[in-house]
Amino acid sequence: MDESGQTRTDLGLFLDLATTDPALPGYRRLFLALRQAILSRRLQSHSRLPSTRQLARLLEISRNTVKSAYELLQAEGYLYSRRGSGCYVAELPVLNVESAPVVAPDVQACNSEELGHAAGVARPGGRLLQCALPALDHFPHRQWQRALQKAAGRAAMVAPDPQGDGQLRAEIARWLRLQRGMNVEADQVLITSGSQQGLFLVARQLLSAGDRVLLETPGFQGTEKIMRMVAARVAHFHQQELQQSDRLPAAKLLLVTPSRNFPLGHSLSADRRLALLNWAQEQDAWVVEDDYDSEFSVGTAQSALFALDRQQRVIYAGTFSRTLFPGLRLGYLVLPKGLAKSLVAIRQIMDGGLSSLPQRALAAFMANGDYSRHLRRMKRLYCQRRAQLEELLKRSSLAVLPIMDAGGGMHLCLRLPASCDDRELARRLNARGVGARPLRALSAEAPAGLILGFAADEPAAMEEGVRRLETVLGPALGQG
Amino acid sequence: MDESGQTRTDLGLFLDLATTDPALPGYRRLFLALRQAILSRRLQSHSRLPSTRQLARLLEISRNTVKSAYELLQAEGYLYSRRGSGCYVAELPVLNVESAPVVAPDVQACNSEELGHAAGVARPGGRLLQCALPALDHFPHRQWQRALQKAAGRAAMVAPDPQGDGQLRAEIARWLRLQRGMNVEADQVLITSGSQQGLFLVARQLLSAGDRVLLETPGFQGTEKIMRMVAARVAHFHQQELQQSDRLPAAKLLLVTPSRNFPLGHSLSADRRLALLNWAQEQDAWVVEDDYDSEFSVGTAQSALFALDRQQRVIYAGTFSRTLFPGLRLGYLVLPKGLAKSLVAIRQIMDGGLSSLPQRALAAFMANGDYSRHLRRMKRLYCQRRAQLEELLKRSSLAVLPIMDAGGGMHLCLRLPASCDDRELARRLNARGVGARPLRALSAEAPAGLILGFAADEPAAMEEGVRRLETVLGPALGQG
Repeated sequence: MDESGQTRTDLGLFLDLATTDPALPGYRRLFLALRQAILSRRLQSHSRLPSTRQLARLLEISRNTVKSAYELLQAEGYLYSRRGSGCYVAELPVLNVESAPVVAPDVQACNSEELGHAAGVARPGGRLLQCALPALDHFPHRQWQRALQKAAGRAAMVAPDPQGDGQLRAEIARWLRLQRGMNVEADQVLITSGSQQGLFLVARQLLSAGDRVLLETPGFQGTEKIMRMVAARVAHFHQQELQQSDRLPAAKLLLVTPSRNFPLGHSLSADRRLALLNWAQEQDAWVVEDDYDSEFSVGTAQSALFALDRQQRVIYAGTFSRTLFPGLRLGYLVLPKGLAKSLVAIRQIMDGGLSSLPQRALAAFMANGDYSRHLRRMKRLYCQRRAQLEELLKRSSLAVLPIMDAGGGMHLCLRLPASCDDRELARRLNARGVGARPLRALSAEAPAGLILGFAADEPAAMEEGVRRLETVLGPALGQG
Repeated sequence: MDESGQTRTDLGLFLDLATTDPALPGYRRLFLALRQAILSRRLQSHSRLPSTRQLARLLEISRNTVKSAYELLQAEGYLYSRRGSGCYVAELPVLNVESAPVVAPDVQACNSEELGHAAGVARPGGRLLQCALPALDHFPHRQWQRALQKAAGRAAMVAPDPQGDGQLRAEIARWLRLQRGMNVEADQVLITSGSQQGLFLVARQLLSAGDRVLLETPGFQGTEKIMRMVAARVAHFHQQELQQSDRLPAAKLLLVTPSRNFPLGHSLSADRRLALLNWAQEQDAWVVEDDYDSEFSVGTAQSALFALDRQQRVIYAGTFSRTLFPGLRLGYLVLPKGLAKSLVAIRQIMDGGLSSLPQRALAAFMANGDYSRHLRRMKRLYCQRRAQLEELLKRSSLAVLPIMDAGGGMHLCLRLPASCDDRELARRLNARGVGARPLRALSAEAPAGLILGFAADEPAAMEEGVRRLETVLGPALGQG
């Protein structure tokens, strides 16, 4: 390397060094600066580098730092050495960076508010009257901490069963036998990160492109996105149509919320359940029962459709996001016996299973009765909170708006005059910190309406929520 | 209902009652028994049920129990009532259960041992010389517990960011900037439940059926299963072939372990890295860099391929299963800026995000330096344990077998004579509690060999492992 070349190189090197992260160790910064000089061809192939002693003196750093950087460059193939004659720049392909590609992702970024099961569930900070958000202020933190401590041990460190923790599956099976009248063994349970993952697994495994799927309307929007992702053809049905199930079109899979429709809360009566099961058999179709919040039914919950099925056609989906807290991200599928193995196999390919700790903590929390105690308390509390919200609405300027859902649950549906744009009103409410969701976003045929959560709000928060509702809805109702 | 009919019904009812779960409350058992009688047509449509008083006396149970059961049956549509005249069985469709369907899942149950990233990682109890299992006995439990306690608060209860916890993403970005020379922001990081899920998301988003994918050989088997699942056409390449990358076939995506091949540990030199990046640009292809265990490289780890990329074509996959523990089930992707949003969108549809608690605990564990301290200790320990295993093998009757990998890491590769069936030998070893894996299972062209983990075993366990190896391999080597 001649004198002028060396000077240019040194200058560039100083500049490159100055741009490296000062948090890095010195040899690493020098490595990066020299690599940059080599890649940018300021240091040309086969040119000789200054000796470690020379460069150390020049940069006023220790010679060991320079040595380490040279060794690293050599190890990665940027330099080669000749015995007794020093280090040389390796001959490397020129990195062609002219035509930067246009990255055009083909999945539209989707609005998380519009996803049903998975998102729009709760946000740090939380909105007033937020849908699907439990009463976090009444959560039994001490008991949960105890369960966590019990769960965190060596057994939580080894790779989990990809079907889900065995103890948790046993607890869920026991729970469903007692509470939902379902004849279930632990090996039929598959732990998921929520209903959304459960439905994706089912769709991925049971549907092929072009297969017809019948979705209940109104219903969760996340479901429809899954079906589009596996290229299924989606059609919709109302619970009433199951009365004449011979008029339902042929389909490979039907998704229904038999115990409580989302969001209206009505349920399938026995005759429709039996008709549905007969339809499934005639069509050789699968039925997915989404039992997202039967825990908070008025009175005793409707029994599970799964419990009536003698054909191994019903797949049951449950979640803990509503009964415990959304950040837990645990749900489950209950599968007909022949289906469990193959779904576990694809889940193993898709995500390899979930973190052990939350699963084991939940198993401990269920086993000692804390879960069932918590649910009983929450059922009472939500009943009170619903009554409070209904009372507040009745006393407000919004008293004319009818409540149109079947009661219970964690939200109510407020009907709006047909002339109202419920999506636009929900957007305005969201902007004011009220977590209302528009009914028409769930179904094009639904009447205009708002879904208002009441489970998470203390009385004062609820009052504030209703005040904001009045402010936003007043003008739209001609009360401006 | 006439006298004889009633008697028959009662008898059936007693039998049905006896078969219900005695753990259930009485009204629930009666509900189930009556529902069974109605569904099986022992109680016919429009027949009148005994009054609650009559049935209570007959069954010697409280009248309230009977009332509750009747109410439930009515609510679900199995009974109807006529004012003043009692309860009648509703007219219901006959449930057609003749032809039970054959459930024929079309995904083969797959052997979890053969899955690379996700499974075969560790099993409760653990095997000797188990691959990819860290030293759980040297895990800093106290520090991890502290991180867990710090993480478990109200913030862990609300729904997590589907891209992954923000603090954790920031910690990972910081780590990669310092340790891997990568220029990364937190919004390019996507938290996954391990590399397996990361690769599935990438394949699902970037590949269409029929697209060609180039996989490094040897390599992880789980990868190939993912590619088959999205119906990509798979071809293989060796790292050496990147020297003449113009001979590589066209492809949409290439998967490589540039810092340490799995399982042989060799790395891509600078010239091959640059040639690979040029190939990717010419082909308009994506490159996935699987950096599964560069933390345990000999000396300083090779820098990341991602750091050389100016084209936003490289996707980087990392995991915590090896650096912390497999039960954590956390890994991550680092994405080119244009790609992050669309991958988050499909992950939201596919699983809606992961449990907050482990993510937040890991963020706290990284933030206070516990993670980097732990890694430094493990790197020293694994270096010692590798030396121990090499020494034990050298002193054993297996000393003739050459070690064929590049050193470092958490396993070594022992070469077997070409005549050996390494799969069969691995099966025999597994049956004897030794977690050896056959090299030929990873690549048809690979020489016969065994992958032996050394990270998890204390000296005594390792000695026992080598003794069992001698017992099983001895006869195969003609030392019988």
